[in-house]
Amino acid sequence: MHIDAIDTPAVLIDLDRVEANLKRAQDYADAHGLPLRPHVKTHKLPEMAKKQVALGAIGITCQKIGEAAAMADGGLTDIFLPYNILGASKLDRLADLNARVTLSVTADNAETIAGYAARFAAEAPLTVLVECDTGAGRCGVQTPEEAVTLAGQIAAAPGLTFGGLMTYPPRGGTVRADAWLQEAKAALEAAGLPPGVISSGGTPDLYRAAEGTVTTEYRPGTYIYSDRMQVAFGLGTLEDCALTVKATVVSRPTPNRAVLDSGSKALAADPVPAPHAGHGHVVEYPDAVITALSEEHAVVDLSACADKPAIGDTVRVIPNHACVVTNLFDTAFLVRGDSVEREAEITSRGKLR
Amino acid sequence: MHIDAIDTPAVLIDLDRVEANLKRAQDYADAHGLPLRPHVKTHKLPEMAKKQVALGAIGITCQKIGEAAAMADGGLTDIFLPYNILGASKLDRLADLNARVTLSVTADNAETIAGYAARFAAEAPLTVLVECDTGAGRCGVQTPEEAVTLAGQIAAAPGLTFGGLMTYPPRGGTVRADAWLQEAKAALEAAGLPPGVISSGGTPDLYRAAEGTVTTEYRPGTYIYSDRMQVAFGLGTLEDCALTVKATVVSRPTPNRAVLDSGSKALAADPVPAPHAGHGHVVEYPDAVITALSEEHAVVDLSACADKPAIGDTVRVIPNHACVVTNLFDTAFLVRGDSVEREAEITSRGKLR
Repeated sequence: MHIDAIDTPAVLIDLDRVEANLKRAQDYADAHGLPLRPHVKTHKLPEMAKKQVALGAIGITCQKIGEAAAMADGGLTDIFLPYNILGASKLDRLADLNARVTLSVTADNAETIAGYAARFAAEAPLTVLVECDTGAGRCGVQTPEEAVTLAGQIAAAPGLTFGGLMTYPPRGGTVRADAWLQEAKAALEAAGLPPGVISSGGTPDLYRAAEGTVTTEYRPGTYIYSDRMQVAFGLGTLEDCALTVKATVVSRPTPNRAVLDSGSKALAADPVPAPHAGHGHVVEYPDAVITALSEEHAVVDLSACADKPAIGDTVRVIPNHACVVTNLFDTAFLVRGDSVEREAEITSRGKLR
Repeated sequence: MHIDAIDTPAVLIDLDRVEANLKRAQDYADAHGLPLRPHVKTHKLPEMAKKQVALGAIGITCQKIGEAAAMADGGLTDIFLPYNILGASKLDRLADLNARVTLSVTADNAETIAGYAARFAAEAPLTVLVECDTGAGRCGVQTPEEAVTLAGQIAAAPGLTFGGLMTYPPRGGTVRADAWLQEAKAALEAAGLPPGVISSGGTPDLYRAAEGTVTTEYRPGTYIYSDRMQVAFGLGTLEDCALTVKATVVSRPTPNRAVLDSGSKALAADPVPAPHAGHGHVVEYPDAVITALSEEHAVVDLSACADKPAIGDTVRVIPNHACVVTNLFDTAFLVRGDSVEREAEITSRGKLR
């Protein structure tokens, strides 16, 4: 099937670009001896995760149990879930998952560890890493001392295994995170709790990941598709972006205005860092600016465009943030050039719990 | 079931608030003799659409064929699709829908009308309204003269019926839109093409809708649930908001920081108008500010809160924009107070084509 036959709006994934993006990252990882454990949040497709593993990734990263379960259903066998899992319902599902795959999770507080400790037993233990806030200001213990305390609580629980440390550093924060993690590692070793794994991540700093001297694995996510935000952060160019939203020009109300059938329910409202602007890059009209999204319309300013599209023309839009676009569509079209290989169900989409 | 038993993140719909919001709007509409044709984009649930019709709505509004088809499957019988429908695949699906329900669509250009005219025949005609841009800067003809031209093209096609005019005015633009529509109505009447329907819409101006002197129906959407954005626009108070996202405090890394399990894949990144700030209103902690969303985390600043939540506590978040949240979840829990009536499948979710 030719891509012209795809009705709009639709997500298209360029497999040649995917494979180039994955190979570039794996080559870097191999050259630096730093294994990858890609985050599947970006694609939510088991077959993409399998491509990542086939290239050399040591496992995958998921953020929610439902997302991980869909990946296990799809044949993935080694899953890291860097999240505080709380509550009886989720802990039961976590135990089911732990029986199916090689699993590890995180904790950044004693309450979460107590929940794990009460649910898991020595016959089928759960591996728990301590999440560290190395500057991103999200989850994580604030000091290496706290990490040692929590590691001790994990190690003391019969049903838990202390797995090491995990962080999601701020963009540009790899070196700063490394100093933090070095100190924590030394403190853990001094306490007789050496961290087996030290896991860091984030696509913006993927090609600086090896500056982390104590990191044992790295978790990039968006690198597989890239998007306007990553390009703004310095990751390659728009020509590396593998995910596009195919859209149709449904209206040309004025000489300089076009309206596409891809609104915020297709492109999402995530902003792009300045000095970039607008809600996506229109590949065929690079000087066009998507000035506004409503739920099912994108308003495009064509003032700067020499050529302008006609009603019924289709375009491909590189979104600001690919990961949230994936989550809006039930399927994605896997393409090579102008040829559609297959329509794939995005099986982990919407798996929020 | 008690709402405490709902795992997080989850969408909860307070039916008492829904019914109060619907009744208030229908009472206004009845008092002013202005029929409602609610937009279902906000709830995407046939049972909510049926509540709206049972109260007096003359039909519903959908934005995409798939959304409309799911509503037809759910028993809705009168659907307005104010969109330029283009392409053979969509026109075939539109014809199927036209055979099932009382249907009308819009056009704002000759190409779209030509497509309708080629696909529909006199035995099963399609009703087409002309979309008018009365200031919102999205779709729509720019002048009443253009409206007359397109109305003539519709009326001349054997398979089409000219249905009237449709506009989505800018917020606060009802009176300005009315002047535009008055002029267009007069021009159409002079041309022998009186508009049977003049349809306007938008929740922000719902309670000023009767200022539109030529409007024959009004299409509010978000009024059923309301949200932070609508409250910022002056529609009622936060106590009227019927949709909340139930979330769990999964981390308390510092004395003034909490992290919820509801990120941008649950709350969406849509902004709230200034002077309001943040990514949602935490009902139990009204002085908390959701300062940042990543995909599966919401970072909350508790600095201004006298009481602060503990790890494992649950909260309910009123999102900035309810309509995009509905579209992120496969199901919604319908509740009254603390009691869950039922978990409903959001059947029109993700129906982008």
